[in-house]
Amino acid sequence: MKTLLLNRQEVSNLICMKEVIGAVEEAYRAFNSNQVVQPDHIGIDLHPPRGDIDFKLGYYKGNEIISMKASSGGFPNNPTTYGVPSGMGTILLFDARTCALICVMDGSLITGLRTGASGAVSVKALARKNSKKITSIGTGNQARMQIRAINEIMKIEEIHAWDHTPESLSKYKADIEREFGIPVVMANSKQEAVEQADILITTTRGKGSVVEADWVKPGTHIVAIGTDAKGKQEFDPEIFRNAKVVVDSIMQCSEKGETQHPLSKNIIAKDGIHAEIGEILLSKKPGRKSDDEVTIFDSTGMAIQDNTTSTKIYQNAIEGKVGTFFEFIE
Amino acid sequence: MKTLLLNRQEVSNLICMKEVIGAVEEAYRAFNSNQVVQPDHIGIDLHPPRGDIDFKLGYYKGNEIISMKASSGGFPNNPTTYGVPSGMGTILLFDARTCALICVMDGSLITGLRTGASGAVSVKALARKNSKKITSIGTGNQARMQIRAINEIMKIEEIHAWDHTPESLSKYKADIEREFGIPVVMANSKQEAVEQADILITTTRGKGSVVEADWVKPGTHIVAIGTDAKGKQEFDPEIFRNAKVVVDSIMQCSEKGETQHPLSKNIIAKDGIHAEIGEILLSKKPGRKSDDEVTIFDSTGMAIQDNTTSTKIYQNAIEGKVGTFFEFIE
Repeated sequence: MKTLLLNRQEVSNLICMKEVIGAVEEAYRAFNSNQVVQPDHIGIDLHPPRGDIDFKLGYYKGNEIISMKASSGGFPNNPTTYGVPSGMGTILLFDARTCALICVMDGSLITGLRTGASGAVSVKALARKNSKKITSIGTGNQARMQIRAINEIMKIEEIHAWDHTPESLSKYKADIEREFGIPVVMANSKQEAVEQADILITTTRGKGSVVEADWVKPGTHIVAIGTDAKGKQEFDPEIFRNAKVVVDSIMQCSEKGETQHPLSKNIIAKDGIHAEIGEILLSKKPGRKSDDEVTIFDSTGMAIQDNTTSTKIYQNAIEGKVGTFFEFIE
Repeated sequence: MKTLLLNRQEVSNLICMKEVIGAVEEAYRAFNSNQVVQPDHIGIDLHPPRGDIDFKLGYYKGNEIISMKASSGGFPNNPTTYGVPSGMGTILLFDARTCALICVMDGSLITGLRTGASGAVSVKALARKNSKKITSIGTGNQARMQIRAINEIMKIEEIHAWDHTPESLSKYKADIEREFGIPVVMANSKQEAVEQADILITTTRGKGSVVEADWVKPGTHIVAIGTDAKGKQEFDPEIFRNAKVVVDSIMQCSEKGETQHPLSKNIIAKDGIHAEIGEILLSKKPGRKSDDEVTIFDSTGMAIQDNTTSTKIYQNAIEGKVGTFFEFIE
């Protein structure tokens, strides 16, 4: 019985962003078609300065693959003290017909890729078709990944960016302009950046520095990425009152997405969440109705996105004869 | 960053039963010394004729290892249709200082080994010192494993065995007599077997065929293995009324061990559980008080047993230079 091993470099070469976007769309559709089993994730929090590790499990009936992603993060001393990255990941793929282990791959890139793709999927589904300008609050790795993904599906004319760290902002501008040739305007304030947005992306750590509701102009599509845990926050919850709210998973977003805040403040009720994005992709529910609507996509990230993305990588590896086989059972 | 890969054959050669017993004792002590983090396990049930797969996570502060065991079972068509075992397992070991993946090993043998060892640990701690005769209700793989483990820690003079399938019973007798040289008496009834026991081991599937309370003679030590899920049962719960009840984990056994039944029937209360076995090993609570006492050890199996057992295998592999290194991250 052979198990395919894929290292990080191989994983990186085995999938392009277009394919990740396709895989994430497939994941969202599957989730809203009763094709998915996703138990609660489990994890262990270690004492600072160590971070945590969590394990996300997903079964997709459509591909008959069970995936398990172990994902660690928040170990600042790893690079200097131990010579390893501060966050790592491992993905196991099982053939759901037998539960045989068919693949072990490095999983450190996949969370970033599929999270980037989720923003792009929401832009395709919900943003105004004449959107040209993106505002990026936060300028770290995921802020770049969002641009990389959205750049695959529309022409971005200009990016307005803000970060509380000026050095991070300048570096983002230099990197984005070099890699994508898209001009980046470094905003003097969050408000100035937000007011420019056709599409507003937030990828901060969600530790309090929020976007005010009245900065957001009609017609904006919001991609809310940074809030993925109880207590994190990137927006004044008032923004939800008159917006069309779309989430990846109602269950997850009510608890740990940006949507937790308007719900707990009774600004919206649970049935005020318009849709899960898979329902829109499946045309079970309508998307944007007018150019004046503010749409919000609240993304917390689902195991099934890891499943479809890593399965695509596995399939590409088999097809391209990439990787190393190992027999755990002779 | 190197990850050690170990296949099933290597795992099998890397640990002896004496070491597994030591590892399980260490696990029980650690569990009752605030050295263990064990989140709830997660799993996926597939439609028959497929079985299930579950994922058990454990962190032991004493060895700074986080283990995750994926374990599948109940796929009867696997061998004939797919050429793979009906149950399989994979264990990941992470260095808890960094969460780097240090080992991926086949995990299909470890559950059997550490469950066998758990019975032996309980015999050392709770059985009468003059115990000579073992009764085995159930004659499958785990029934053999219990003998293999107990044979390491005491002299077994005679085994009385019963199984509802006569062929399984004869095969057990032949195998045990050949492998260990211990005479096996094939009992004509469960009652006849139980009445002979100094130590009574049950390893059935827990599907109803129970041991009656008044068959059990004073002084017997019971090793209750088969009940590891809600609804399974091997004993008349009346047996708990006057016995000294020891469990691996009160939380687990109250819910899915044999102890669930006397609790739900109010035959004992939760504080009628005498101890977790780690407390006895640590001398925090007394063990057997007299030769007349009936002692019960209810084992549901804990992630931390997988942790200490697989860590010992890993350490032996590193020491003996066994296995194959793979770099998931260059």
